[in-house]
Amino acid sequence: MKNIGILGASGSVGMQGLDVIREHSDCYRLVSFSVGRSLDQARAIIEEFQPELVCVQNAEDAAQLADYNIKVVSGDAGLLDVAGYEQNDMLLNAILGSVGLKPTLHAIEQGIDIALANKETLVVAGELVMAAARRHNVKILPVDSEHSAIYQCLNGEDEKTIERLIITASGGSFRDLSRDELEHVTLEDALNHPNWSMGRKITIDSATMMNKGLEVIEAKWLFDVPVDHIDTVLHKESIIHSMVEFNDTSVIAQLGTPDMRMPIQYAFSYPERLPRQAERLDLAAIGQLNFKPMDLERFRCLKFAYDAIHIGGTMPVVMNAVNEAAVAKFLNGEISFLDIERLIEREMKAHDVILNPDLETILEIDADYKSRHYEV
Amino acid sequence: MKNIGILGASGSVGMQGLDVIREHSDCYRLVSFSVGRSLDQARAIIEEFQPELVCVQNAEDAAQLADYNIKVVSGDAGLLDVAGYEQNDMLLNAILGSVGLKPTLHAIEQGIDIALANKETLVVAGELVMAAARRHNVKILPVDSEHSAIYQCLNGEDEKTIERLIITASGGSFRDLSRDELEHVTLEDALNHPNWSMGRKITIDSATMMNKGLEVIEAKWLFDVPVDHIDTVLHKESIIHSMVEFNDTSVIAQLGTPDMRMPIQYAFSYPERLPRQAERLDLAAIGQLNFKPMDLERFRCLKFAYDAIHIGGTMPVVMNAVNEAAVAKFLNGEISFLDIERLIEREMKAHDVILNPDLETILEIDADYKSRHYEV
Repeated sequence: MKNIGILGASGSVGMQGLDVIREHSDCYRLVSFSVGRSLDQARAIIEEFQPELVCVQNAEDAAQLADYNIKVVSGDAGLLDVAGYEQNDMLLNAILGSVGLKPTLHAIEQGIDIALANKETLVVAGELVMAAARRHNVKILPVDSEHSAIYQCLNGEDEKTIERLIITASGGSFRDLSRDELEHVTLEDALNHPNWSMGRKITIDSATMMNKGLEVIEAKWLFDVPVDHIDTVLHKESIIHSMVEFNDTSVIAQLGTPDMRMPIQYAFSYPERLPRQAERLDLAAIGQLNFKPMDLERFRCLKFAYDAIHIGGTMPVVMNAVNEAAVAKFLNGEISFLDIERLIEREMKAHDVILNPDLETILEIDADYKSRHYEV
Repeated sequence: MKNIGILGASGSVGMQGLDVIREHSDCYRLVSFSVGRSLDQARAIIEEFQPELVCVQNAEDAAQLADYNIKVVSGDAGLLDVAGYEQNDMLLNAILGSVGLKPTLHAIEQGIDIALANKETLVVAGELVMAAARRHNVKILPVDSEHSAIYQCLNGEDEKTIERLIITASGGSFRDLSRDELEHVTLEDALNHPNWSMGRKITIDSATMMNKGLEVIEAKWLFDVPVDHIDTVLHKESIIHSMVEFNDTSVIAQLGTPDMRMPIQYAFSYPERLPRQAERLDLAAIGQLNFKPMDLERFRCLKFAYDAIHIGGTMPVVMNAVNEAAVAKFLNGEISFLDIERLIEREMKAHDVILNPDLETILEIDADYKSRHYEV
């Protein structure tokens, strides 16, 4: 029996994490979780899973859960309580955005393995996080389908023989549009992802291709591969989730129908695999897999990500923070789709990079750039 | 330094095995080899690689190599001498047909690891061969691109979690023809394989799909997977070389440009990988991978193979022997393309199967069915 904590249990990945626990209740037990302000979901989760600790966003909401026989905490301190809860064997960090960083680090310090869906953790502080994981002998299991794919492709392989990671990209909601056509797309269009049912923020990040940029940076840290050896390729069917090319030209790929429960379960079960009742891949029925070169002029946010990680230091922090702020503004109807990348480009150009930032600096820069009032 | 013996050094796979040794002369040394009657090639190999033992087909040819400072043997006994040569760390068995069986077993008994390109070894005597390998703690590394792919996909995985092996098939020279159109195809057409440059016999076996049938049987023995869990799919580009589906629905695939030197080198280097200077896979340039369901009515030889392994005993021996005889007749212009499968079907129907045959019985049945005079 493995005890699981979940940060962000009411989000898309969090709920699918609960599905995995439900399906394998003989193997996994939910012991702690956080939700934001979704009290109804918190109640349902408490009643179904009988965990020991819950965190909600604020103290008033916490009071409303007083009837249950469960420890209730709240706020940022509460998130740390859940992350580092002594009963957790593994923490599924499915919080959105860089707010996921401190809980990840806290769990690592308690020796708790991490199933990481919060890619911003590695984007803003990959070096610190991976060093902490090594120090505390903690495993970081990726929950992104792409990184889970690479993790699986590397099974039994010597990392020194990696020639190239090849991350596939569906292209997102606007993959067939030119840059001119992007000028007038709507929020509704952007939220209509062709392959994956995901949260709103990541769906927008897929449309801008920033999601792939975050993944490239995440892959660099997770697998200790220089970004020059991390390629992306457009693959609209999202069937090959990613690949590894080795030094003998052999390429190992992981495939499957798009379903986040697979990588979540793999993170829970690693290094084993557990049976899943789910749709099986049928390539003959799918018929065709398509691939196109990635165009960094068309998908500029991906170029920003390569630039940011090449520059290093606080540049990825700024890129990510401005992206979070800009996507929030777009989701709020305040700016246009292309304004997202315009803001990121402008702020990255203006930023005086600080190399080798410590955690405090990272968090300061992150908070600063997220709270600014951006005018387009 | 690993000492390599090669059976069938002048054939297509054998020569590519020599390429691998040449490219990695710091890792591999040719110590023994056989050729059939290609004396010029034997001389060239002796001069370049300075091995210690050579086998040619007959004693007169052997006499012609007397000038070299090398031990020369001949005939079937000579094949066994090469196979079991005490200096071999690994034997690449690249002989064609069931004549490869006894040398494989002999090498196994000497504790020599096998790089197996001779698929008939496992088709006719898979149970005996795998049992001998276990007994002598010998590794059987597949050299077929399909089985090498599966071997790579299983790296670091627990074989108990295998749900399905998925072997890809290019479809061979006639993949786009109907059965009616097959009535009048020529030998020249049949030898024109779209993707792979291979020997004549295997090229015909690809066109009849018997090659895939032999591979299904081979996979059953190599990976200890019931044939009901071994599927085939048409994939005309031959880029995905084969796949493994696991119990959690995850599918791992191995991809690469069609080049037999990759699986040969992998068999030599396993469990490590060594660098190769060769064309790298570029999926964006390839653009599209296509898949179609396998049609067992269209490709009847594949159905025969499933039938033969389900029946078991001597049936796969008969199927393989009649196939070898029929393909030889087709290559000789004596019968038509579709006569190959007609002969196999007729002889399988007429055969009284012997279950659990010993090696002697297998060899007798094999020799019997190969030497018969088949009339169409």
